Amino acid sequence: MRSYSKEDIERLDQRYRTNLINSLTGFKSVGLIGTQNKARLTNLAVFSQVFHMGAHPPLLGILFRPHSAERHSLENLLETGYCTFNHIQESFVEKAHQTSARYAASEFDACGLTPWYSPSFPAPYLAEANVRLGLRLVEKHLMQVNQTELVVTAIEEIWLPEQCQLPDGYLDLEAAGSVCCSGLDSYHTTQRIARFSYAKPDQPLRTIEPLPADSVKQA
Amino acid sequence: MRSYSKEDIERLDQRYRTNLINSLTGFKSVGLIGTQNKARLTNLAVFSQVFHMGAHPPLLGILFRPHSAERHSLENLLETGYCTFNHIQESFVEKAHQTSARYAASEFDACGLTPWYSPSFPAPYLAEANVRLGLRLVEKHLMQVNQTELVVTAIEEIWLPEQCQLPDGYLDLEAAGSVCCSGLDSYHTTQRIARFSYAKPDQPLRTIEPLPADSVKQA
Repeated sequence: MRSYSKEDIERLDQRYRTNLINSLTGFKSVGLIGTQNKARLTNLAVFSQVFHMGAHPPLLGILFRPHSAERHSLENLLETGYCTFNHIQESFVEKAHQTSARYAASEFDACGLTPWYSPSFPAPYLAEANVRLGLRLVEKHLMQVNQTELVVTAIEEIWLPEQCQLPDGYLDLEAAGSVCCSGLDSYHTTQRIARFSYAKPDQPLRTIEPLPADSVKQA
Repeated sequence: MRSYSKEDIERLDQRYRTNLINSLTGFKSVGLIGTQNKARLTNLAVFSQVFHMGAHPPLLGILFRPHSAERHSLENLLETGYCTFNHIQESFVEKAHQTSARYAASEFDACGLTPWYSPSFPAPYLAEANVRLGLRLVEKHLMQVNQTELVVTAIEEIWLPEQCQLPDGYLDLEAAGSVCCSGLDSYHTTQRIARFSYAKPDQPLRTIEPLPADSVKQA
């Protein structure tokens, strides 16, 4: 095994260190955040610092880096109070990564992706995404140590492919074609090992059956 | 497509809603958090609300739910100032899930997993894990909306399989055998689509070559 001490980490070349540290949390959620400003100029940006914060109420956390291109998304979210989170499928993973470039105009146009508005939500969704969430700003925390901003959002609207949901509510993300990422720049599909039952100290785990393969139409 | 409005979400059965909402952020990082209290009673617990917070300084965020079994980990982290984060491989994914049961004694013993101490770090690592991080408490934020606690930690020690790291610093998590999870209970291996170059508005993306297959010894 290779080990890095605190001092070793501090001495690393900046680019090398960024690649290494970004790999360490493991595989990450990744999606496209859709926003618009009050003048209705849209923005779409790829984000991997997104995480589940609770189901009752339904909450999703987003971490915004200081002084980066991603700040357009944060500015629009603060200005309007709303954004969307859209899963990425393998079919448009390259376009999704391209949204991280610094565009002056909308990334929807620049990257060949399609905005879509639901009848009831004020921020743009991504038409290509199989799973789309409408999010409302709830609260915001500034991390003292590195000036990143944590934004807590409430999930107010959900769009998903009906045939990918199990009878117990679980959404089969493999059936929906959602990808994950690692590091700064790597995208991955997944293969299920198993779903396990709720763990209790004195009982062996059971596995929960996935969707029958022929009930799923891959998108 | 199936859609859920805010009111639809509120009306869902609690268990169904928990399964659905936990699926919506996409595939998640998952690992085992190792701690001990001042009396050196160890604890090991599976966590999926863990995320990258920055590389300069190297930071990792952990979200702790209120009033749950996981609070042993939080109590120990607050008491000692230290914890570890250990990746999960397919070979012990069932034992990892079993750590979520409410044990009075240490989950290392109860679940058949092995504590390991580095010469220089005060919290227990998991001997079975190929990737192990030593973390120090930095700051803490309480989410007003649902009383979850966000803990910011500094990465102070890293252990990883040398042959899984690329010359640019990126850690090949597939080569290291790390898994991800979805929902509350599903575990997944991954398959790389591609690594892409840094995106610029006026340039096509390049792909970055992965590790040659014969240079990696799967753990």
